[in-house]
Amino acid sequence: MATVPSIKDEDAAPDVKRTFDDIRTTRKTDQVNAIWRMLGNYPEELDAVWTDVKRVMGAPQAEGGLDPLTRELIYIAVSATNQCGYCVHSHTAAARQKGMTDRMHKELVQIVSLAARTNQIVAMLQVPIDPAFDLDR
Amino acid sequence: MATVPSIKDEDAAPDVKRTFDDIRTTRKTDQVNAIWRMLGNYPEELDAVWTDVKRVMGAPQAEGGLDPLTRELIYIAVSATNQCGYCVHSHTAAARQKGMTDRMHKELVQIVSLAARTNQIVAMLQVPIDPAFDLDR
Amino acid sequence: MATVPSIKDEDAAPDVKRTFDDIRTTRKTDQVNAIWRMLGNYPEELDAVWTDVKRVMGAPQAEGGLDPLTRELIYIAVSATNQCGYCVHSHTAAARQKGMTDRMHKELVQIVSLAARTNQIVAMLQVPIDPAFDLDR
Amino acid sequence: MATVPSIKDEDAAPDVKRTFDDIRTTRKTDQVNAIWRMLGNYPEELDAVWTDVKRVMGAPQAEGGLDPLTRELIYIAVSATNQCGYCVHSHTAAARQKGMTDRMHKELVQIVSLAARTNQIVAMLQVPIDPAFDLDR
Amino acid sequence: MATVPSIKDEDAAPDVKRTFDDIRTTRKTDQVNAIWRMLGNYPEELDAVWTDVKRVMGAPQAEGGLDPLTRELIYIAVSATNQCGYCVHSHTAAARQKGMTDRMHKELVQIVSLAARTNQIVAMLQVPIDPAFDLDR
Amino acid sequence: MATVPSIKDEDAAPDVKRTFDDIRTTRKTDQVNAIWRMLGNYPEELDAVWTDVKRVMGAPQAEGGLDPLTRELIYIAVSATNQCGYCVHSHTAAARQKGMTDRMHKELVQIVSLAARTNQIVAMLQVPIDPAFDLDR
Repeated sequence: MATVPSIKDEDAAPDVKRTFDDIRTTRKTDQVNAIWRMLGNYPEELDAVWTDVKRVMGAPQAEGGLDPLTRELIYIAVSATNQCGYCVHSHTAAARQKGMTDRMHKELVQIVSLAARTNQIVAMLQVPIDPAFDLDR
Repeated sequence: MATVPSIKDEDAAPDVKRTFDDIRTTRKTDQVNAIWRMLGNYPEELDAVWTDVKRVMGAPQAEGGLDPLTRELIYIAVSATNQCGYCVHSHTAAARQKGMTDRMHKELVQIVSLAARTNQIVAMLQVPIDPAFDLDR
Repeated sequence: MATVPSIKDEDAAPDVKRTFDDIRTTRKTDQVNAIWRMLGNYPEELDAVWTDVKRVMGAPQAEGGLDPLTRELIYIAVSATNQCGYCVHSHTAAARQKGMTDRMHKELVQIVSLAARTNQIVAMLQVPIDPAFDLDR
Repeated sequence: MATVPSIKDEDAAPDVKRTFDDIRTTRKTDQVNAIWRMLGNYPEELDAVWTDVKRVMGAPQAEGGLDPLTRELIYIAVSATNQCGYCVHSHTAAARQKGMTDRMHKELVQIVSLAARTNQIVAMLQVPIDPAFDLDR
Repeated sequence: MATVPSIKDEDAAPDVKRTFDDIRTTRKTDQVNAIWRMLGNYPEELDAVWTDVKRVMGAPQAEGGLDPLTRELIYIAVSATNQCGYCVHSHTAAARQKGMTDRMHKELVQIVSLAARTNQIVAMLQVPIDPAFDLDR
Repeated sequence: MATVPSIKDEDAAPDVKRTFDDIRTTRKTDQVNAIWRMLGNYPEELDAVWTDVKRVMGAPQAEGGLDPLTRELIYIAVSATNQCGYCVHSHTAAARQKGMTDRMHKELVQIVSLAARTNQIVAMLQVPIDPAFDLDR
């Protein structure tokens, strides 16, 4: 149950249809996930978000940069922290496709929940930032 | 300005002093960060948290597991999402020590902010979870 | 599935029934939304929250003040950021009733997701507050 | 550095001055905390919030109800989770005044951080709600 | 619909089965909640989290410490703030088992929502921390 | 104290300098806020974010669309909910420049804090979504 209707291929405006096709080609799948079909109501925003997702998540690994799987792990971490169930599901599936092992998923769960725990300790104790972290020193 | 006093080495109970020393030895530094000195007020919790941080963040890379730098990147992503300034500072410093390049930091900023953006889109549109993500199908 | 039962009209205490009737009259509808039926378990809090919702959301536009539709848009923005699906649904419906166009909804989605993105950039970079923002200067 | 000026006693409108005096009398202190002085810019909202704080936090313990100290502990827990440093500080001070022991504070830190940790585990694993929790069964 | 399968008793590794049994014995119930069955995929983490839950939530009340019911109320407050529906459900059930009255639940709802409201006021007004809260003064 | 250095005009790469100049021209000010100077470390991301901010926040009001001031109010609401102090400050200043009255600011504070309160009530009671909100009915 969404706040906007889902745009099917047959109802899509030409520029929306073009983005749906680009999603299928880029991801080598027939499936166009629900987030894109909902964004299909707003073609300009669909294009802006998909372009950014391709730019940030789909670029090949640069020298000294992150590999595509690591990017997915970071995406999951943020999505879980924001309690976005849809995003956790879609990016956990994507991470598995890109080679996430069970061991990696386990460690991801451990790190994300440990960070949440220490984030809260810092909030409870109002820990001041160590001067050693100051870049200008 | 914190809600508990900072425990200095000379005021630390023996078990707290032992944990402080273990932190210095493990991290090969003289510095004991403020979070540990605040937790020093509660020795049992200091020990529990430090033990967990060592277990999760400090373990050598297992086969099929995450390397220590990737773990730090994930930690930063969660901490920024929780708006924990202290944690962003301390783990960004740790990530740099473990080899985070400027390129990696740039990509981390990009991924974390992109995820926040799509998390919000999902929340606005109330996107339903695609059946394709169902493990039981 | 809720943590308290839903209070039906026939089971409502007199003061709860009176609030339900006031909701129907004020909103010109037969429908009493689920949040009010759940709060019906706690009559004092039902009255306090409904009174405040009427005061803040239902007042006619004051000179130099916000119009009722703009108020709904702000309500949606907060609710999406807090990942409150129920609230996004009910206030998106209310905003449409008060004249929200598709164009407005599109822009709302854009602004809310852009703000989340820059909020995260600030958290990642720990951007210091510009002195120019200081009211006391 | 705030987004509105602080209202001093000598600059306060009569109804604002009356609320400031009620805060001092109720709390048996000369100090009017910064949140009230900022809200003093908006007398109607100052009155609404202070009235609610007195109603919820200041009421004597009812039969089968919570004591004032427990209320403060819950307030701190929410404020830390929302990363509201000001609120953590002011309610930790209030809790100490109402008898919070170091032992209680330690346990509060433990519970709040444990809950954050399991909240994240649930988000990562997308744990479905057990049917046993359904009130309607 | 979860991101990992649920581990049934008959499929559980011996150490996982042992933890499931300990959960049943400790909680005097036949039910093993879904979070534990999901964590059963990662035996080391299942053990670590369960051990911590027993340590923090299950310990008998210490002198000057919190009673088990108060601990559950705090847990609910954090879980609601993090919008963790599963956690709100399971700990509201646990709190009722430990004696939470309807009156207590009502007050909990009041305090948690009041704190969220003032947390937001502080964020909107950017209220500076009163020097009176400084421990070092 | 930030996690990256601030890029001054004299140290800026040509494309960064060009963006700084575009910010000054677009906003009719000499001031380049700190977020842009921090993003100046990552020219590609600086350009992407600034382009998006101009596209979403700077476009003239479309027919049936939102006016620039309303957009700022929504931005503030999200930023306060995410506890982003920097963003609250910069967009409150921008809103005032675009005509936000004290009355509007007061109402904004009221709505944002009321929404946070009811978001929490929904989370505590786990209110189910009313079928009436279903678009497919």
